[in-house]
Amino acid sequence: MSHQYNLPSARDKLLFTPGPLTTSLSVKQAMLHDAGSWHFEFNFLVAQVRERLLKLAGLSREAGWDVVLMQGSGTFGVEAVFQSCVPPNGKVVVLANGAYGERIVQMHRHAKIDHTVLRTAEDTPYDPAALEACLAADAAVTHVAFVHCETTTGIMNPIEKIGRIAKHHGKVFVVDAMSSFGGMPIDFERCGIDFLISSSNKCIEGVPGFSFIFARRALLLASEGWARSLSLDLLGQLKAFEKNGQFRYTPPTHVILAFEQALNELESEGGVAARGERYRRNHGALISGMSRLGFRAYLDPSVQSHIITSFIYPEDPKFDFSDFYRRVSDKGFILYPGKISQCDTFRIGNIGRLTESEMNQVVYAIGEVVAEMGVNMQRPAA
Amino acid sequence: MSHQYNLPSARDKLLFTPGPLTTSLSVKQAMLHDAGSWHFEFNFLVAQVRERLLKLAGLSREAGWDVVLMQGSGTFGVEAVFQSCVPPNGKVVVLANGAYGERIVQMHRHAKIDHTVLRTAEDTPYDPAALEACLAADAAVTHVAFVHCETTTGIMNPIEKIGRIAKHHGKVFVVDAMSSFGGMPIDFERCGIDFLISSSNKCIEGVPGFSFIFARRALLLASEGWARSLSLDLLGQLKAFEKNGQFRYTPPTHVILAFEQALNELESEGGVAARGERYRRNHGALISGMSRLGFRAYLDPSVQSHIITSFIYPEDPKFDFSDFYRRVSDKGFILYPGKISQCDTFRIGNIGRLTESEMNQVVYAIGEVVAEMGVNMQRPAA
Repeated sequence: MSHQYNLPSARDKLLFTPGPLTTSLSVKQAMLHDAGSWHFEFNFLVAQVRERLLKLAGLSREAGWDVVLMQGSGTFGVEAVFQSCVPPNGKVVVLANGAYGERIVQMHRHAKIDHTVLRTAEDTPYDPAALEACLAADAAVTHVAFVHCETTTGIMNPIEKIGRIAKHHGKVFVVDAMSSFGGMPIDFERCGIDFLISSSNKCIEGVPGFSFIFARRALLLASEGWARSLSLDLLGQLKAFEKNGQFRYTPPTHVILAFEQALNELESEGGVAARGERYRRNHGALISGMSRLGFRAYLDPSVQSHIITSFIYPEDPKFDFSDFYRRVSDKGFILYPGKISQCDTFRIGNIGRLTESEMNQVVYAIGEVVAEMGVNMQRPAA
Repeated sequence: MSHQYNLPSARDKLLFTPGPLTTSLSVKQAMLHDAGSWHFEFNFLVAQVRERLLKLAGLSREAGWDVVLMQGSGTFGVEAVFQSCVPPNGKVVVLANGAYGERIVQMHRHAKIDHTVLRTAEDTPYDPAALEACLAADAAVTHVAFVHCETTTGIMNPIEKIGRIAKHHGKVFVVDAMSSFGGMPIDFERCGIDFLISSSNKCIEGVPGFSFIFARRALLLASEGWARSLSLDLLGQLKAFEKNGQFRYTPPTHVILAFEQALNELESEGGVAARGERYRRNHGALISGMSRLGFRAYLDPSVQSHIITSFIYPEDPKFDFSDFYRRVSDKGFILYPGKISQCDTFRIGNIGRLTESEMNQVVYAIGEVVAEMGVNMQRPAA
């Protein structure tokens, strides 16, 4: 573990994580002001943010949609949907192929909401046939819970196929799009989405502190009296926005100021399509660079997102992840550990204020580190 | 409502609110960095913040205490205690003389936790005799819920008397000290406190985004399996801090960086005693200035906190609060509307990065505004 002391850089380390991300300096500078959470100027800003989010998602109130901001991390937003919008006798089918699907299962256990889990392996997208069979067999099901990009691995799940099955059976389709929304186009109507949750510190490139939940208004309004938690009461939150423009409880004012600036910068970049293209280029640079170094991605390219990639540890026992991580960190790049149960991996994210050139830089630093550590990157002949 | 356009000031408006507050520029500047929420440097900082909070409260792990940070507003922290630490067959006595006590009642209704409410009028502190009678009569009660400074009015409730009664009957004593912690000394043991909740954007003078919950470890550890919400699971949150130093779910990293700086500045000011003295001086300047203008405080001085003060609307019908508020805002001072059911009031807070001189400035601006509006401040002879 011992290696030479590195004078800290003048620059902040870059985050190659699934969020919190590296954000632009101007996004952070937007936080250099204190806003009154009751004050009309701040309420106006919150209203504008909600309008802009709807527009970004291609939705409108006229078409029956709304969006609610919820304090806390993305998990709080996901849980708010289930705690608030599943009726007392509801039942949820949870699709799971990683930690975020399993987290939704845990939410249901805590809230004692009836549920069934349909699991696939961590390297395998959700199985539409299994969902079809489940919904055909169990009429008690009211909701289907789906994770779009499971950042445990970086796998993309088949949103349109699953959504169509949910809608065909008349179920409410709830999408955790934490790390995908804003990083790729999502057609809500085509995918049959009823609720979709993302958060401030993902592909919009804001800072962490709240989530936002797109919802069909009719479903929200029908949930009166169902919320099992006051803080996470989604309809209560919507009603407060509509009554006086305010959050019911103190919002993270600075984080919201940063988010407004992040929305400005997303527009300047050319919107979701352009941002998705940058992430795709970042991913391309990463994959080709890491592959050149001898690293193997965990997932098959056909199911791999351009959001985050899991790489398998080199086979050489000289590769110690903790030492590797610290050495790469000392060079100014923060990687992300793995979370996969079947196999030792680490992760590198492509989202946030990162350029293709910076993806090449992190690959270069990783190359230096494996050389310094004397790791043999040759794979044994098959 | 029409009045001359004011060129916006170069400076941010000052917030005379119960939070979010005006914070120092250096606290906000601490947010100009992106931290990795999994990264060891950030985990170290979170551990230090927890240590410093315990020390600030005069508590220690050796004496059986711990502190948990929880994402979201202060309300999320208060609800986390009840959702997590009241057993399935528990029953809570909620003391209430304002909106924050009533909010705790709402939490129990949402979570379907058995409870009784002991109300006093909004200008009257909680009644120890009523609690004594209630606890003597109802053996099913397990917890007593208490709001220290009810910012609805600014009233101080009798923490030591109520705490002693709760402890005498062997009940768990839960204190919402949102707007008081850090602004006045609180002796946890003397007051029989078991749980105490406050938040980042109150008297520590950080920015909003999380709350912190002091808890007797034994009570937290005994709550295994009780949490009705995953996000608000207090023991789950503690276990994650103890397992790997991390939040279970994305923390508001920038807000935590700001909080560390706020703790530095609280120490530089001389700690809780010195800060409490500043707030007391602020309050004194406010009360004498407003009284000079002819405004009357809603509460009797004997129960009035130095945190926030409710002032009764002048009797002259020329006083339109909305116009008054905007005019004072145009001069650079943001007031806070009233929330009292019995009487029309507005509020002025003394907490945050505010000096005695600035209290005099807001009073001066209010004097100008009532003159501009032609409000007669003379009270009719009794």
